[in-house]
Amino acid sequence: MRRSAADKARKLVKTTTSTRSLSSNSASHRPSPLVTPLPRFPLSPPPPSSNSSPLSQFALRFWTSLSSPSSDSMAPPPSSSLTVDTLNPKVLKCEYAVRGEIVTLAQQLQQELQENPGSHPFDEILYCNIGNPQSLGQQPITFFREVLALCDHPAILDKSETQGLFSADAIERAWQILDQIPGRATGAYSHSQGIKGLRDTIAAGIEARDGFPADPNDIFLTDGASPAVHMMMQLLTRSEEDGILCPIPQYPLYSASIALHGGTLVPYYLNEATGWGLEIPELKKQLEAAKSKGITVRSLVVINPGNPTGQVLAEDNQREIVEFCKEEGLVLLADEVYQENIYVPDKKFHSFKKISRTMGYGDKDISLVSFQSVSKGYYGECGKRGGYMEVTGFSPEIREQIYKVASVNLCSNISGQILASLVMSPPKVGDESYESYSAEKDGILSSLARRAKTLEDAFNSLEGITCNKAEGAMYLFPSIHLPQKAIKAAEAAKTAPDAFYCRRLLNATGIVIVPGSGFGQVPGTWHFRCTILPQEDKIPAVVSRLTDFHKGFLDEFHD
Amino acid sequence: MRRSAADKARKLVKTTTSTRSLSSNSASHRPSPLVTPLPRFPLSPPPPSSNSSPLSQFALRFWTSLSSPSSDSMAPPPSSSLTVDTLNPKVLKCEYAVRGEIVTLAQQLQQELQENPGSHPFDEILYCNIGNPQSLGQQPITFFREVLALCDHPAILDKSETQGLFSADAIERAWQILDQIPGRATGAYSHSQGIKGLRDTIAAGIEARDGFPADPNDIFLTDGASPAVHMMMQLLTRSEEDGILCPIPQYPLYSASIALHGGTLVPYYLNEATGWGLEIPELKKQLEAAKSKGITVRSLVVINPGNPTGQVLAEDNQREIVEFCKEEGLVLLADEVYQENIYVPDKKFHSFKKISRTMGYGDKDISLVSFQSVSKGYYGECGKRGGYMEVTGFSPEIREQIYKVASVNLCSNISGQILASLVMSPPKVGDESYESYSAEKDGILSSLARRAKTLEDAFNSLEGITCNKAEGAMYLFPSIHLPQKAIKAAEAAKTAPDAFYCRRLLNATGIVIVPGSGFGQVPGTWHFRCTILPQEDKIPAVVSRLTDFHKGFLDEFHD
Repeated sequence: MRRSAADKARKLVKTTTSTRSLSSNSASHRPSPLVTPLPRFPLSPPPPSSNSSPLSQFALRFWTSLSSPSSDSMAPPPSSSLTVDTLNPKVLKCEYAVRGEIVTLAQQLQQELQENPGSHPFDEILYCNIGNPQSLGQQPITFFREVLALCDHPAILDKSETQGLFSADAIERAWQILDQIPGRATGAYSHSQGIKGLRDTIAAGIEARDGFPADPNDIFLTDGASPAVHMMMQLLTRSEEDGILCPIPQYPLYSASIALHGGTLVPYYLNEATGWGLEIPELKKQLEAAKSKGITVRSLVVINPGNPTGQVLAEDNQREIVEFCKEEGLVLLADEVYQENIYVPDKKFHSFKKISRTMGYGDKDISLVSFQSVSKGYYGECGKRGGYMEVTGFSPEIREQIYKVASVNLCSNISGQILASLVMSPPKVGDESYESYSAEKDGILSSLARRAKTLEDAFNSLEGITCNKAEGAMYLFPSIHLPQKAIKAAEAAKTAPDAFYCRRLLNATGIVIVPGSGFGQVPGTWHFRCTILPQEDKIPAVVSRLTDFHKGFLDEFHD
Repeated sequence: MRRSAADKARKLVKTTTSTRSLSSNSASHRPSPLVTPLPRFPLSPPPPSSNSSPLSQFALRFWTSLSSPSSDSMAPPPSSSLTVDTLNPKVLKCEYAVRGEIVTLAQQLQQELQENPGSHPFDEILYCNIGNPQSLGQQPITFFREVLALCDHPAILDKSETQGLFSADAIERAWQILDQIPGRATGAYSHSQGIKGLRDTIAAGIEARDGFPADPNDIFLTDGASPAVHMMMQLLTRSEEDGILCPIPQYPLYSASIALHGGTLVPYYLNEATGWGLEIPELKKQLEAAKSKGITVRSLVVINPGNPTGQVLAEDNQREIVEFCKEEGLVLLADEVYQENIYVPDKKFHSFKKISRTMGYGDKDISLVSFQSVSKGYYGECGKRGGYMEVTGFSPEIREQIYKVASVNLCSNISGQILASLVMSPPKVGDESYESYSAEKDGILSSLARRAKTLEDAFNSLEGITCNKAEGAMYLFPSIHLPQKAIKAAEAAKTAPDAFYCRRLLNATGIVIVPGSGFGQVPGTWHFRCTILPQEDKIPAVVSRLTDFHKGFLDEFHD
C-alpha cells in the first residue's frame, strides 16, 4: 500500500510536468485581441527602483534564482501600475528576518543538495532559525491529534473500529466538542470570536492557571498569535506619531506589524548583563524620549518568556511593569505564547492578568491583552495556526470595534480553535490518555531543557561568545565578539557583520541561525538567535559543527 | 458512550460556572499595590465619543446587552488611552454588514429562544445572511474529510482497522500528501506560500481547468480568500489618493479592506436591468471621474460569479474587462471563489487567467490575481479557512514583496492547505471514492440550483419585489420597492429603510437576511441579500414565512 502510493505520487508529478510543457507551447501562439483595443491613456510606470538597499538586492537575486527556470528574466516589467516605486511604502519598510535572506539562501542550498548530493560540505540543512519544533522531528501529542482527526471526520465516531484506533477519552472529548458546535458543523464559519463552547473551555483553563476569573466573551480565537498582534496594532496605530514600546531584542513580528500599520517602534533595551532584565528606569527613559519627539506612546509589548532572549520575568518585575502601564495609561500587550516553556526550577510562569489581579487591579484599572498560541509550548503545533487573545480592560465601544475587525475575516480555522481549547484543557488524572499524554509532554519539556543547557554551555565555551541562560521559550541569543577584520569583510560584502557570520556558518555547516540585527541589539554589539529545537541525537553534531566553524572563522579573521 | 459524553460536557460547564463565581468573589478583595506607584503623568483620556452614528449606537446597545451578566455596565471607562476617539479612524470607518447589526440581533433572539422557548413567533433562527452552507445542514464531502482526518493523525495509517473505516483512495491520498510535506510534519510551519507539493497539485488543477500552464511558484496559500484580499489591498494602497474600482453592489470584504488600508473605493455600478451586467462604459466613466478627483486608480475588482448578485459573466464581457485592465495598467483582482457554483446550462465559468491567455496576453501584459477558497463551491468548508491566490504578471521585485508580507504570518493552516489541494484535485474516474464523491457533489449542486430557482420565483411573486436570476454563487439580491410610509417609519427609527425591513422580518420570522445598504446599491433603490442555503426541506417554510411577512408589511405600510 505504502509503496504504491508513493509511486502514484511520483506519477502525478510527472503527469503535471508534461501537461505544463504541453500547455507552454499552446501559450506561445498569440492570437490578436478579440475586442477593439481601448484608447490608451498616458500611463508611464516609473522604471524599477535603482536605490534599493544592497540587502534587498541580495534577497531579490535569490528570489529570481529560485523562480521557475521557464520564466524569462530578461523580459521588461509588466504593464501593471504596481512597481516597487508605487507600492505601499509601509510594505517596503517592513522586515522579517526569521524568514529573510539567510532562509532564502538555505532553501537554495537545500534544493542544490537534492539535485546534486555532495555539492556542499554537509548532508542536510538544519533549520535553527525558527521555533518550528515538528519540522525538526518533534512528534505531536497523540491525544490532541486523535481529537482533531475525530472532529474532522465525525462519521467514524460511532463505528466499532474507531474504539480500536482511538483512546476512549479522545472519542469522548470529540463528542463533547461536537456538542459545543452549533449543528456539529465543524465545516461552518463560527462566531467571529470563535466557538462559544471552546471559549468556555479556554476561559476555564485560564481560571485554573491563574486562580482568577476569565470571561469567554474576552477570548478572541485567532489563526495563531500573529493575526491577533496585527489586530491590536491596527487598532492602536493612527499615524507614525503613535508609538509602541517594544523590547530590543524583540521578535520581529512586532517591528514588522508596526511598520505595516505605519506606527513607530519605541525601543526599550533589555539588559543583557542582568540576564536580559527588563528595567523600569529604561522604560521611563524611552517613554520620555519618545514623548519629547512628539510620539504618543499607546502600548507596551512584553514577551514573557522572552523571544529571542529566553528570560523568564520575576514576579516583582511583572508587578512593576503592570504599575507602569497603569500609571501611563498604556495598553499592556503580553506575548505569553511560551508560557509552558520554562526550563529552570527557580522560575515559574505568571500571566500578566494574574499579576494585575493579585495587585487588586481589575478591568477598570488596566487594559491588557494576553496572546497565546498552539504553536509553542510542549505541543508545538505551528502548522495548525491556532491561538487566542484574552482582551480585558477595554470599554464596550472598543470591544465592539475589536469584534468588528475580527468579523471582517469571519473566524479563525476550526481545527486551530479546537486545538487551542485542548492545550488549555489537556487530559486529567484518571483519563485513559493521561499517562501517555504526561509522558509525551514531560519527555519533550525535559529534553528541551537538556538541549538548552547543552547549547548554552557549548556557546559559552567558544572564544568571544557569551550566552545567557535559556530560562524559557525556545531560543538562545548569544553575544558574539567579531574581530575587526570580519567586520571589514562584512562591510566589503555589503552585509551586516552578524549576517556575514550567519551566512558563512550556513555555507560551511548547513546550520541556519538568524543574525541579531533582525531582532535589534545595542549598537556595536552582535548576536544571533539559535533555536534549541534540533532533536537530541543531533545536538552533538550541531555543537561540533558550530565549534569547528567558529574556530575556523576566528583563525581566518583574527585581528 | 454518546450519552455519557454529553453528561460529562454538561458537568464540565457546571464546574466552570461554579469556579467562575467563586473566583469572582476572590477578585473583589483588593490588596494595595505591592510597589510604590510611579509619578503620574498628566494623561486625561477624552470622554467616550458622543457623536457616534445612530447605527453604531444601536450595535453598541446589542453588544452591551450580550455581554456577560456579571459585567458592571455602570463602571467608568478603564484608564487605558485607547478610546473610540483615539482609535485608528480607519477601523472606525470600516463596516461589515454580513456580520453586522442584524446578525447581532439574531444572536440575541437565539439566546432568548434557548432560555425561554416560545418567547418569539418562531422556533429557530434561519441564517440566510452568510454563505455558510454547513451551518445550515450541508454535509461535508466524505473523501475530503477522510483525507484530512488521516493527515491529522497519520499514526493510524498503518493500522488494519483503518482499512475498514476509510476508503482506499483516501488512505493513498493521505500518504501521497504526507510524502509532499518535509518530514511528514503536518504540525510544522510550511513554506510561507504553502507546501510546495500541494502547490504543484493546485497548479496542475488550474492547468486542467484552464488549459494553460500554471506555476506553483505563483500560488500563495492563505487562510481562506479574505487574508489574500487584504494582502493585495495592503500592497496597492499608499493613501486615500489610491483607488480600487469595485462593483456596486459588492461583497463588503472589499469596502472593509479598502477602509482598513486607508484607500478609496471607486464604485462602478452593475446594471440590474441587464441581469447585473458589468458594462465597460460605466467602468471608463467611473475611472475618469476618479482621475479628475486626483485619485490614482490601481486595480479593478471583479467578482465572478457575482456576490451578492449571482450573475455569471459572459466570455466576451470578460475579454473586454481584460482589455480594459491591460490598457489602463490596472491590477485585475478576480474573486473567483464561486467558480464551482453555476446553476444555469447556458453559462460556464472561465477564469480571467484563461481568458487573458486565450487573448494571447501573458505575464508581461497583465497583472492578475485570482482568489479561490475552500469555503464555497459544492464543498462549503468555511470553517477550514483554506484558499489561495494565483499571482501572475508582477515583476520579481513585487513578487519578493508579496512573499515578504506572506512570511510575516509564517504560513496558512496546513489542513486548509491540504483541503485547497483536494478541491483542485478531487477523486477521478476509477478511484474507489469517485462514485460516492460524484453523487455527493452532484446532489449538493443540483439541490442548490433548485433552491435558487424556488426562492427566485417566490421573490418575483411578491408585490414590489423583482429578482434577477441566480446564475451562480449562493445568493439572491432582490430589489424591493418600499412604500413611503415604511421609509418614513425607518427614518423615525433612525435606520436605513432596507435595514428596517430586514429587522422587521427577523423579529417576525427568525429569518436573517442582509440589507442592500451593506453591499451598496443605486441611491434610492433598496435590496437585500438572501442566501440560497437553507436545506431543501426548509425552503417551503422559508417561502411561506417570507410571503406572509411581506404581505403583512405592505398592509401595515401601504401608501
